[in-house]
Amino acid sequence: MARIAYVNGHYVPHRHAVVHIEDRGYQFADGVYEVVPVFYARLIDEDAHLDRLERSLEELRMPLPKDRRIIKMISSEIMRRNHLTHGFVYMQVTRGVAPRDHKFPAAGRPSLVMTARQMKPHSEKQLQEGIGVITLPDIRWQRRDIKSIALLPNCLAKQQAAEAGAAEAWQVDSDGTITEGSSTNAWIITRDNKLVTRQADHSILSGITRLSLIAAAKGAGLAFEERPFTVEEAYLAREAFLTSSTNLVMPVVKIDDRPIGNGYPGMMTMKLRQLYINYVAAGSQKPSGKKAAA
Amino acid sequence: MARIAYVNGHYVPHRHAVVHIEDRGYQFADGVYEVVPVFYARLIDEDAHLDRLERSLEELRMPLPKDRRIIKMISSEIMRRNHLTHGFVYMQVTRGVAPRDHKFPAAGRPSLVMTARQMKPHSEKQLQEGIGVITLPDIRWQRRDIKSIALLPNCLAKQQAAEAGAAEAWQVDSDGTITEGSSTNAWIITRDNKLVTRQADHSILSGITRLSLIAAAKGAGLAFEERPFTVEEAYLAREAFLTSSTNLVMPVVKIDDRPIGNGYPGMMTMKLRQLYINYVAAGSQKPSGKKAAA
Repeated sequence: MARIAYVNGHYVPHRHAVVHIEDRGYQFADGVYEVVPVFYARLIDEDAHLDRLERSLEELRMPLPKDRRIIKMISSEIMRRNHLTHGFVYMQVTRGVAPRDHKFPAAGRPSLVMTARQMKPHSEKQLQEGIGVITLPDIRWQRRDIKSIALLPNCLAKQQAAEAGAAEAWQVDSDGTITEGSSTNAWIITRDNKLVTRQADHSILSGITRLSLIAAAKGAGLAFEERPFTVEEAYLAREAFLTSSTNLVMPVVKIDDRPIGNGYPGMMTMKLRQLYINYVAAGSQKPSGKKAAA
Repeated sequence: MARIAYVNGHYVPHRHAVVHIEDRGYQFADGVYEVVPVFYARLIDEDAHLDRLERSLEELRMPLPKDRRIIKMISSEIMRRNHLTHGFVYMQVTRGVAPRDHKFPAAGRPSLVMTARQMKPHSEKQLQEGIGVITLPDIRWQRRDIKSIALLPNCLAKQQAAEAGAAEAWQVDSDGTITEGSSTNAWIITRDNKLVTRQADHSILSGITRLSLIAAAKGAGLAFEERPFTVEEAYLAREAFLTSSTNLVMPVVKIDDRPIGNGYPGMMTMKLRQLYINYVAAGSQKPSGKKAAA
């Protein structure tokens, strides 16, 4: 079955899905994106992702290219056309095609590209063993709250992690505190069992999974602090993990060369993962009533 | 006459020049570019631009998609096909098309897109009156020496300048020193007639016009310092100007609401502009021997 993509009003075979070379997304990274996870053919936290998309666009003073209702229709349609059950819907909005000039074009029409991608859930092995992360300086721009496609530094960080045999890079600000991963949010559980993640200001992206997990953790009455934490504090944490739309809650068992806790996925981390999955399963209103396994 | 672009091996009508939506330039800003000015149908400082292109690519560990000899041939060919006399050749290299993943693709083939654009020289009026700039915080990433297409912050800065009625934004680092404009380098001439521009480290792009002007100024025996300067020092400067491939040497007569010097283009600035033009005219080996006017 050929994959189908949506490009500016048309459903086209993925291999023929193209944009003009003077789309400002290609020449200026002048655009934003969202990745909405799909489990059991249901979009998870769709409205939260669209809220964030609208916020990113507002910050860049770009209009939403279509009504939210239409974007939801397109999401459903590309899921249907691609027979998507597990994976994600990707959407990207740019300021559109215009003769190259840094200034915003006077009369631009934004571009909207959407794709659907089937993706296997994480292996049980990865979950049982956890993953390693490295730390490196955060060299990104200062508006990381905008989910822009200017992702070059994130790519460099992820590549450096991969070459070090790690799954993610935790980026460190000039004050020694961890901001976030290259495509994930960073969390620790302290020796006195407090769940800690950085507050969502301009220094990180406000992750949707992060928000949902905070809600789930608060609902379960867990002790929670929203604040920066240093690399040293992370080394000494009882547990560590990361969150993202495609990773859900993923245990981190090594930071640089330091094992975290006993070097195995933490009990509380796995409990939080289950809390999150229950939260998502409830929210996604899966008709069969079965829990959405990851 | 229809414009012609070069896209990955093909010369195509500009309006049909497209790249795949999963070109990493479109989804990750994972690419670099150069703008080579053209006067009297001659490329200016072509080798210096190609040197910088190679350096940017090396920093991102991306291969040069074609031999330099071939890139020069394509430059000539799109100039010819577009009857280009004054303007520039634009070239962009990205890491190519690959399924979306932050990590570098294992077997990627870089994309090469080249365009030619006719552009009128600056009006005499603009030169005679000079331009105004604003200052604003430099929020960009920390590898500004790489000429990447992750230009979103540059676009935001240029737009903010335009809305303030200014032609450029001079970006200011957290220590209060000016780094550079959103697409130009920043210069001042101090009260004691020293020519000052910031040293080319990771904090700015090493401008080709900047390099050529330094060579020309040194050749003319002018006092020159390569160092950071503060906004306050710029306000109090005798003269100010900016350089870029398309602006050459452009007098700055106002910074924020402060007139610089007597509020008119500076004598030394105009002398430097002429020095640069002579330098370029000599280098471009224009057969007629006439000076390349701007």
